[in-house]
Amino acid sequence: MERTIGVGVLGMGVVGEGVARVLATKKDLIRRQVGASVDLRGVLVKDQNKPRSYELSKDLFVNSIEDLIQNPEVDIVVEVIGGEYPALDYIIASLKKGKNVVTANKEVVAKHGPDIFQVARENNVRVLFEASVAGGTPIVSPIVRDLVANDIKSIKAIINGTTNYILTKMAQEKSDFVNTLKDAQSLGYAESDPTNDVEGIDAVYKLAILSTLAFRARIRDTDIYREGLSRLEPQDFQYADELGYTVKLLAIATLHGCEVQARVHPALIRKEQMLAKVDGVLNAVEVETDIADSIMFHGPGAGSMPTASAVIGDVVNISRNLVGDSGFPDPLKLSENIVIQPITSLRTQYYIRLEAEDRPGVLAQIASVLGQNGISISSFIQKGTNHEFGTAELVIMTHEAVEHSVQDALNGIHKLDVVASVGNMIRVVE
Amino acid sequence: MERTIGVGVLGMGVVGEGVARVLATKKDLIRRQVGASVDLRGVLVKDQNKPRSYELSKDLFVNSIEDLIQNPEVDIVVEVIGGEYPALDYIIASLKKGKNVVTANKEVVAKHGPDIFQVARENNVRVLFEASVAGGTPIVSPIVRDLVANDIKSIKAIINGTTNYILTKMAQEKSDFVNTLKDAQSLGYAESDPTNDVEGIDAVYKLAILSTLAFRARIRDTDIYREGLSRLEPQDFQYADELGYTVKLLAIATLHGCEVQARVHPALIRKEQMLAKVDGVLNAVEVETDIADSIMFHGPGAGSMPTASAVIGDVVNISRNLVGDSGFPDPLKLSENIVIQPITSLRTQYYIRLEAEDRPGVLAQIASVLGQNGISISSFIQKGTNHEFGTAELVIMTHEAVEHSVQDALNGIHKLDVVASVGNMIRVVE
Repeated sequence: MERTIGVGVLGMGVVGEGVARVLATKKDLIRRQVGASVDLRGVLVKDQNKPRSYELSKDLFVNSIEDLIQNPEVDIVVEVIGGEYPALDYIIASLKKGKNVVTANKEVVAKHGPDIFQVARENNVRVLFEASVAGGTPIVSPIVRDLVANDIKSIKAIINGTTNYILTKMAQEKSDFVNTLKDAQSLGYAESDPTNDVEGIDAVYKLAILSTLAFRARIRDTDIYREGLSRLEPQDFQYADELGYTVKLLAIATLHGCEVQARVHPALIRKEQMLAKVDGVLNAVEVETDIADSIMFHGPGAGSMPTASAVIGDVVNISRNLVGDSGFPDPLKLSENIVIQPITSLRTQYYIRLEAEDRPGVLAQIASVLGQNGISISSFIQKGTNHEFGTAELVIMTHEAVEHSVQDALNGIHKLDVVASVGNMIRVVE
Repeated sequence: MERTIGVGVLGMGVVGEGVARVLATKKDLIRRQVGASVDLRGVLVKDQNKPRSYELSKDLFVNSIEDLIQNPEVDIVVEVIGGEYPALDYIIASLKKGKNVVTANKEVVAKHGPDIFQVARENNVRVLFEASVAGGTPIVSPIVRDLVANDIKSIKAIINGTTNYILTKMAQEKSDFVNTLKDAQSLGYAESDPTNDVEGIDAVYKLAILSTLAFRARIRDTDIYREGLSRLEPQDFQYADELGYTVKLLAIATLHGCEVQARVHPALIRKEQMLAKVDGVLNAVEVETDIADSIMFHGPGAGSMPTASAVIGDVVNISRNLVGDSGFPDPLKLSENIVIQPITSLRTQYYIRLEAEDRPGVLAQIASVLGQNGISISSFIQKGTNHEFGTAELVIMTHEAVEHSVQDALNGIHKLDVVASVGNMIRVVE
């Protein structure tokens, strides 16, 4: 009989619902990747009757952590309650019962990570926590696994989506902090009590986790200097802009010799830097290393589904180990019924440059060939004129069109008497 | 006795030298991360007497692949010869002898990946190939492991550093292709025979690997439409710029239902897009997924040490398995002698905004306080005047200074009669 892996989930907030939803809707994908079925065996919630956006069978609800961790059919406990207590107690209790743990809890990992890892090691189980930093963007695993040959010299990160959203809006709309925060709250980008985000506490937790992993040394949240957004005035954004800078809440940790400097505060960063271009609720982590140079990871920092992506990634990787696999995904698990489309069926916009006679009616002839092929023009520019030959260079941007029609049209245009040559066609990518 | 892991290296070009160098210089780090020593046991080279930038003991050189794969002390074979043959034959021979393989060879993985994985599986060993795409930037492992819960919808990537360097230069210097290529060759950014790079062949190999992994379906190099740089003229860059676009050689693969469209060609991409900002020899891969949204990985795409970073990462992860570990790095392997520096010892530039009386001599007083604290001014702007109070807003950017001096200076400035208030101080981040 095929082995099945049992999962128990602690908490059914937005992330918990995402986890339950992905486990159900991606059952086949997960089974194929693991080589075993991964089944939800129980969910610990406070209020079983609360209406939820993702409805679960009532049979899955349990009243106490004991109901989950005493269940021999639960192999992995997913902790998505958040906050320090009771999450920490539940994690420790699960590990002591021999359960593997996947957690999205930055506060618990930042404050108690090394203690938790110690308990896991003593009980010969694992704790994974990819979702605790930067939501669905892989960063924990790349640092500890892919970049293992590197000594990491610094981390520079935008790891709080709420504050990055507020700063982006303040810069774009020249608005003040209090009103921008209110707007962010009404849009659901900031919580009703925004303290953890706007005072930089959330970013400090995440930086404590990242710098502990990067420097292979325990960096506590209390080791990190912290300053929030509240002193920023609209004119700071204007002056920063004039000076060539963008204002970002950066989380920075640097290692010089055996000295660590770690801090979270509003910072001016040159507009040309990639981090300056990270807008809205997105996150980005830039890691500077000794041998792999500087690497940036950029993506969603929160949200139900992105965070579930990281949680399920950890669940799958533990499951692969539980079924006796080494933890390396087998690249051979391929699907068979994929069809390759030829370039001629591509649909996109096109840039076309051509040399044509510089006289009235020429554009009409060209547009007519395009139109016969179902291609409409989005913009048209006549560039430099060649007086010797009486020609001009024309640049045409099309609306979305199909490649084979564009190829046909270019053949037709090339044959027009008024066209000297088709210089180039370049596809536009969204 | 502690187990040791033996490594044999095929080829001693720039990447091979990087691998040998990292294995030697990072011996302690690797031992700590693996829980066993990882030792170089042999190197297959064509010419043992060729001078090398990293000198190896002559005892390590072997003449034939058999000398390495018949050696029971070699656990992992690292293939960094490049090209299709004999690399493919050596990889297959190694796997059949029960050796794990780490390869940086995009051509072999693109053309023969699934066959190689099959042989590995039959012999119960592994093939890892992180270095085959985007050099030191983790991308293979994040796709197959961290993003495993996702269905990937598209890949958009800049995965050839040579062509991105040429395009960046053509855009900046309005130069033509032929001359820019010559410059790139003289600087070592393009090979003497640049065909594989400028015709997009190298990018096709990498896209075949990425799209096979992302779509979990075999996408061959021959399935991918390919167009190189040679038709681009200087005016294309100018017109693209005027239209709001940047010209990049993009590698794109999209999956709609069960249909794949994969292509490598010069493309216009909107300047605001992150990929448009990837300049010079850097690489970036943007992955669009169903649940983790859009994620970008950005970093070095080639080079001796970055590529060695990826190779050694794979070697370490196989070694972890060989010593009986599950492949999850233990986050507890921490160093003890790390010192946390307080924010007061930070050295950076500072932005200072203050409100002061709008009359001659005021700046002198402020500059004097800064000077007494060893802080020099990089720029100074007088902004809006408040006529009612006779004050003006001043913005000062300092040269690099130490935080405690800045704090002292701000206290001193605050006490000046001519200063109404210190509005804000924001740290600048390089």
